[in-house]
Amino acid sequence: MRIDIITVLPELLRSPFEHSILKRAQDKGLVEVHLHDLREYGFGKHKQVDDYQFGGGAGMVMMAEPIFACVEELQAERKYDEIIYMTPDGQTFNQRHANSLSLVENIIILAGHYKGVDQRVRDHLITLELSIGDFVLSGGELAAAVVSDAVIRLLPGVLNDETSALTDSFQDNLLAPPVYTRPAKFRGWEVPEVLRSGDFKKIEDWRHDQAVQRTKDRRPDLLDDKK
Amino acid sequence: MRIDIITVLPELLRSPFEHSILKRAQDKGLVEVHLHDLREYGFGKHKQVDDYQFGGGAGMVMMAEPIFACVEELQAERKYDEIIYMTPDGQTFNQRHANSLSLVENIIILAGHYKGVDQRVRDHLITLELSIGDFVLSGGELAAAVVSDAVIRLLPGVLNDETSALTDSFQDNLLAPPVYTRPAKFRGWEVPEVLRSGDFKKIEDWRHDQAVQRTKDRRPDLLDDKK
Repeated sequence: MRIDIITVLPELLRSPFEHSILKRAQDKGLVEVHLHDLREYGFGKHKQVDDYQFGGGAGMVMMAEPIFACVEELQAERKYDEIIYMTPDGQTFNQRHANSLSLVENIIILAGHYKGVDQRVRDHLITLELSIGDFVLSGGELAAAVVSDAVIRLLPGVLNDETSALTDSFQDNLLAPPVYTRPAKFRGWEVPEVLRSGDFKKIEDWRHDQAVQRTKDRRPDLLDDKK
Repeated sequence: MRIDIITVLPELLRSPFEHSILKRAQDKGLVEVHLHDLREYGFGKHKQVDDYQFGGGAGMVMMAEPIFACVEELQAERKYDEIIYMTPDGQTFNQRHANSLSLVENIIILAGHYKGVDQRVRDHLITLELSIGDFVLSGGELAAAVVSDAVIRLLPGVLNDETSALTDSFQDNLLAPPVYTRPAKFRGWEVPEVLRSGDFKKIEDWRHDQAVQRTKDRRPDLLDDKK
């Protein structure tokens, strides 16, 4: 898989891709992540990529031309399955999006900044608009990193059995059950007896019950949402 | 405001806090962000912070003791308003959380990793569990950065008028209207006439109508949610 991220702040994204699972996935050749500085496609000696908005109002808008230029340069090299724009008014990104994006070959992620991008980019270039949630960030960079992380960890070979994604929250519309590790007693608080029983059938039942109970308590909406 | 982030991967979080608005907010003295390496509180020469889970199963669990030690060292220095744990089964973080956290003095954010933290940390130390969405990340680090970003940009003095948060999506339960910048005509696609009319009353009405329409089309749930 290949992910191209277009941003005015490529430096902001360096460290998340240089550590942990995202780094290992790249080192193993399972994914290529390329950061593109939109400013290289900007106008004039200041490499301008934004301008005032038509109709007036606070906040600069990212211009269409540099974005088209950058995307079309990439498209000349390979076919992209999705050209994604990170924006608070996009579809709310969830595990189903992550699963389906983990199956494609090449994606571009455009990180919005300032007041957003010229609407003509959204109308004529972008194929998928995603939001990571109902909150506003200072730019789309962290959102692009979040989507990349959620997708990359699902690629075959990225996680080993120890960190298997199969028992994660959301993969079965249930939240994960509580987990405990040593010591068995810490400050008077004990690990539940059943987890120390060695009875794997009982442990499995307890975990399932806890997962269902936690989901009922915290996110009953997930139980209505079996698809 | 002061934000202390506890993580096993502080390096992963360096670049997001060293650029753009998060950097400027720190440079201006409006927020202090401290990254703490949980491993410094780990056991033995390997600085162990995780262990196998009771009851068996894939995935390591972060141990209670190093987390308690790190948090209590911080609490000895100052009072914390919230001790937040980033976890997929937490409350779904939204703009209301961001607004309310932007009003407090000191918060700790614990970034989960591996299969999660020992439940006793959640039961006896954490005061608020947040999720940034219904998807699973390889760790809570990016989620901690997202929450920090959403909160920090709301602190008075961080954004200037040009980037005012007041017209953002979600601040009034409406998505933002489309924006356009130069050129007025790009590849045959024109900027809507009204935005070039100079009639500010008409422009304001158009923007409001577009915001309402976009919200109806994309996120009707926000309109039911006026609180």
